[in-house]
Amino acid sequence: MWGCSALQYPVNTMSADIIIKNGTVLTMNEDKEVIQAGVVIIKGRKIVEVGSNDLLAAYSSKNVIDAAGGIVMPGMINTHTHVSMSVFRSLADDVPDRLNRYIFPLENKMVSKEMSYLGALHGSIEMAKSGVTTMVDMYLYEESAAEAVKEIGLRGIMTQNIIKYPTADGKDAQAKIDLAIEFVENYKDDELITPGFGPHAPHTVNREDLEKIKLLSEEYNLPVSMHVAETETELNDFKDNYGMTPVEYLDSIGILNERFIAAHAIFVTDSDITLMKARDIGVAHNMVANIKSAKGVAPALKMHDQGLRVGLGTDGPMSGNTLDIIGQMGYVAKLHKLANKDRSVMPPLKVVEMATMGGARAIHREDELGSLEKGKLADIAIIEVISANMVPMYSPYSALVYSANASNVDTVIVNGEIIVKDKVLLTYDEVKSRKMMLDFSKRVSAIADTL
Amino acid sequence: MWGCSALQYPVNTMSADIIIKNGTVLTMNEDKEVIQAGVVIIKGRKIVEVGSNDLLAAYSSKNVIDAAGGIVMPGMINTHTHVSMSVFRSLADDVPDRLNRYIFPLENKMVSKEMSYLGALHGSIEMAKSGVTTMVDMYLYEESAAEAVKEIGLRGIMTQNIIKYPTADGKDAQAKIDLAIEFVENYKDDELITPGFGPHAPHTVNREDLEKIKLLSEEYNLPVSMHVAETETELNDFKDNYGMTPVEYLDSIGILNERFIAAHAIFVTDSDITLMKARDIGVAHNMVANIKSAKGVAPALKMHDQGLRVGLGTDGPMSGNTLDIIGQMGYVAKLHKLANKDRSVMPPLKVVEMATMGGARAIHREDELGSLEKGKLADIAIIEVISANMVPMYSPYSALVYSANASNVDTVIVNGEIIVKDKVLLTYDEVKSRKMMLDFSKRVSAIADTL
Repeated sequence: MWGCSALQYPVNTMSADIIIKNGTVLTMNEDKEVIQAGVVIIKGRKIVEVGSNDLLAAYSSKNVIDAAGGIVMPGMINTHTHVSMSVFRSLADDVPDRLNRYIFPLENKMVSKEMSYLGALHGSIEMAKSGVTTMVDMYLYEESAAEAVKEIGLRGIMTQNIIKYPTADGKDAQAKIDLAIEFVENYKDDELITPGFGPHAPHTVNREDLEKIKLLSEEYNLPVSMHVAETETELNDFKDNYGMTPVEYLDSIGILNERFIAAHAIFVTDSDITLMKARDIGVAHNMVANIKSAKGVAPALKMHDQGLRVGLGTDGPMSGNTLDIIGQMGYVAKLHKLANKDRSVMPPLKVVEMATMGGARAIHREDELGSLEKGKLADIAIIEVISANMVPMYSPYSALVYSANASNVDTVIVNGEIIVKDKVLLTYDEVKSRKMMLDFSKRVSAIADTL
Repeated sequence: MWGCSALQYPVNTMSADIIIKNGTVLTMNEDKEVIQAGVVIIKGRKIVEVGSNDLLAAYSSKNVIDAAGGIVMPGMINTHTHVSMSVFRSLADDVPDRLNRYIFPLENKMVSKEMSYLGALHGSIEMAKSGVTTMVDMYLYEESAAEAVKEIGLRGIMTQNIIKYPTADGKDAQAKIDLAIEFVENYKDDELITPGFGPHAPHTVNREDLEKIKLLSEEYNLPVSMHVAETETELNDFKDNYGMTPVEYLDSIGILNERFIAAHAIFVTDSDITLMKARDIGVAHNMVANIKSAKGVAPALKMHDQGLRVGLGTDGPMSGNTLDIIGQMGYVAKLHKLANKDRSVMPPLKVVEMATMGGARAIHREDELGSLEKGKLADIAIIEVISANMVPMYSPYSALVYSANASNVDTVIVNGEIIVKDKVLLTYDEVKSRKMMLDFSKRVSAIADTL
């Protein structure tokens, strides 16, 4: 009324749906700009502004989140998982040849639509609470998994597993292709779920079925996710049988293109890498699962540095055991240093880049996801920096990669919706989901004892 | 009054100070017994009984902890750290030759009694909350660090750093030996703190000073902790200069014995391992720090299998960044599988053994620590199994090693005292310690910018 303030606030501020203030904002934009006391303005599904404190004068909202100095970053992208397998987590770890000896027999007895839904529900909760906002999944009865992912409020590229063996969800590959088509028809226009095709691996799907999948992916313009070059045996068998690497074999079918996401890619040659780049495929780098199974360290650093689209993935929770990307980051940083005998390679910034923009590029959605920039979808994680392991924080990238764990994640926003706040999931009753899981796990135990 | 119950409870139950009930008790005793719905009875500083539900009829206590199915395990032992360096965490990660180029200059400017205390206070809080109950530490002004460790309520084998270079706490090795003697005299009868001698490394302490330290350690019957065979350069230099490995060189001084704890031991030969076993020394295996610095995977599996006393360590928080042992366990399990190209080696049980009994053996205190057994000291961690990453739990060892993170630790008891309950530290105001750390870190930043 009387006098005047040195700071003139606009009389009419613009309204926002959510304002995040007081963050250490890792934009992950092209300049890798970090904004101290940073602000992110969200309207509807999108980020409308990212900047400094000054923005607080221009916008108002009923929903202001004080990040309290915490790290505000793009939601992490888990580029490869089998989320429903959370029901089997911690079962038969470290058994040699466990896929054939243990996992397939167990799945034949236990997998159902109910199981696929329940495992995806539980695993999505774990991802949501750890700051993962998008997953690329491949499993049986994938439509049931997609339903759960949507219920928790995550973004999912959900690919129906297609394999030549009889499985709980179909007697042959064609039965699973039919399931995929049905799923695709039901979900092709969904905002959060992108349905797709998940041929299991080059040696577990026949060539003619891969050709069908290639055509379907083209027809619907939907993604294909597939295990590629995961074992040395696979590489050697393809060389012996076809005179080609698995990557070359897939390329001979014409399935490698911008809709294709290759999981693992451990045993790839330099010329495979050149070919993968030329075909513009995405790559999911699953460090924890790959070394737990003693397979090896994929040349993901070389791929990334050569401009390939490399994101991070957890693999299924029976392989990597956890579904958070924060845990992967520490391994990715350290294993590439060890493999290259050079502590300066794979610095934290590069690892965080893989976890965010790298993942977005791997799924060819870098225009919408992977960084905090005006016009992008509002998929955001806030990591608190008050737990003892996060203090002090001279470098937010180092703190994230070398110190943080999944439980440091405080707030998570997907598609403009807050799904986790103050470490509490807002979209589902965790007590209920845990009870359902514990009940189901008793049935799993009974079957597992017979294997 | 009328009728009678099938279950007759004794009229006079024995009194206990603490009863833990309803736990998945990993005893880590010789038979590796796991007790479902298990009970641990604590009286004074000690465990008086470990067993099944039946014990609840025999004991009563005002302090009953319901573990709610959680994992009840021996407190973890961190066999090598520099806890005070938490003040420098996330600074200058991944800089080549950073010890000489960065850490020593920074320490010369920043280390003081105040810093040693503050860093140890903060780091002890992180360890306490993550289920570490005993640490083996080596740093400057170690008496100040010991004061903080005791204040938080942890057990510490605290060794005064002795190095030939001028440091903030003394101009030469003798000055630091004098500090060590003063500290030893003050703390030699302490219940939680065991003072000791921390010669930095074979190449950073002169032979005559190592001989003095050897005699002092004998005279006081107190431990020596030392970096040994941490780099390939160290190994090669000793071979070139003395025609001996670092381990052989130390043995020629007579310092390798049951009071000696060797940190790292990465570049050791098979005959070194035989010698280390013959001398009955302890070994601290610091996987995360060793691979982050691209040094290598120590042959800790071979050492353990040959009966050496191998525990796990974090190294300092400027090297390994975190101070919890749970985080180390996942790396230890996976890196040995990778190094041996065999997924079946280093199973979770063996890793948990290293984290508990292995650590107790490394410090030659396996009669008092490392397992939950009648007569042992009550150092216990309870890990909740309700967070999404811990559900379901078919194997508690797998869940601990492959799924758990430091934040899953719920309750921690040291020496019969509850120091963490429901994830809250009871022995210090965390808001206060965080504020002290943040204030100090501003001074560190100002100095770091000049290096």
